[in-house]
Amino acid sequence: MNDYQESSSPVSDSSLFIKMVVSNWELQNTRVNGLLEKLTDEQLYANVAPGRNRGIYLLGHLTAVSDGMLPLFGLGDKLYPEMESDFLRNPDSTEKEYPSVEELRSRWNQVNARLSAHFESIEPSEWFQKHASISAEDFAKEPHRNKLNILINRTIHQSYHLGQLIFLK
Amino acid sequence: MNDYQESSSPVSDSSLFIKMVVSNWELQNTRVNGLLEKLTDEQLYANVAPGRNRGIYLLGHLTAVSDGMLPLFGLGDKLYPEMESDFLRNPDSTEKEYPSVEELRSRWNQVNARLSAHFESIEPSEWFQKHASISAEDFAKEPHRNKLNILINRTIHQSYHLGQLIFLK
Repeated sequence: MNDYQESSSPVSDSSLFIKMVVSNWELQNTRVNGLLEKLTDEQLYANVAPGRNRGIYLLGHLTAVSDGMLPLFGLGDKLYPEMESDFLRNPDSTEKEYPSVEELRSRWNQVNARLSAHFESIEPSEWFQKHASISAEDFAKEPHRNKLNILINRTIHQSYHLGQLIFLK
Repeated sequence: MNDYQESSSPVSDSSLFIKMVVSNWELQNTRVNGLLEKLTDEQLYANVAPGRNRGIYLLGHLTAVSDGMLPLFGLGDKLYPEMESDFLRNPDSTEKEYPSVEELRSRWNQVNARLSAHFESIEPSEWFQKHASISAEDFAKEPHRNKLNILINRTIHQSYHLGQLIFLK
């Protein structure tokens, strides 16, 4: 690690990486929340573009994906495991009875509050440990597939759908 | 850094973190390229949704944003500084004469080839140095605003617009 100490920049360390990743995650959440505040429930029942997913589906999808981080990070079971079928395994369907937009807004906030509380208290070393879906053998070969990498990936995923949800404005 | 060495996970280091960020960037590029290969030039002249940006504008926008990383990373001037006005400072307009989709595809590839070549050869310590748009004073206070953070941010931005470009399929 000598090259870091010799460079003119401040010495980099794991806390710095974590801060970079968590602050980008929080920024995306802030953007999604800002949009959700502006959108009425009626707007969220509309398709983001003709023939494309409805806002309600994307809100459920983002909530289910974030909820999935709880077991991946070893934080216990999903809060809403029943959402997996509707919002992860199956496409949007007007034939299905989804939870109301009001209920989904509440679940979105619950899941994010749980994640945020964890991100504030997690020990730095934990971020670099394997997540629950990779075997110890694979992780030994691919140590970049750690918890922090999951959060980078989920941040990018959230941005993808935010780019679509913004069309509801 | 003792807590890392004591943990059961492999010792984390800066190279690992760089690999996480660069591979997420490359994954996004691969996804955009995969979509661009499938879309005809005609499809890219269409609006991604009614009243929203056209594919040609978003392709120019993503190219101009990536081109902007060259001076930020100290790699010399932008390859296409003239794109800034059309694709960064101003919204999509059918009144304007943009470069052809064919030309934009070529520029997109040029810029990405230049960035990729750099990412392969860059010294790890360079990633943690300040980028060209932050003052030394601010960087001393906010060392997470380094080059690697720019790449995380640009990866998230690219995903946002990929979520829109996909509607052209």
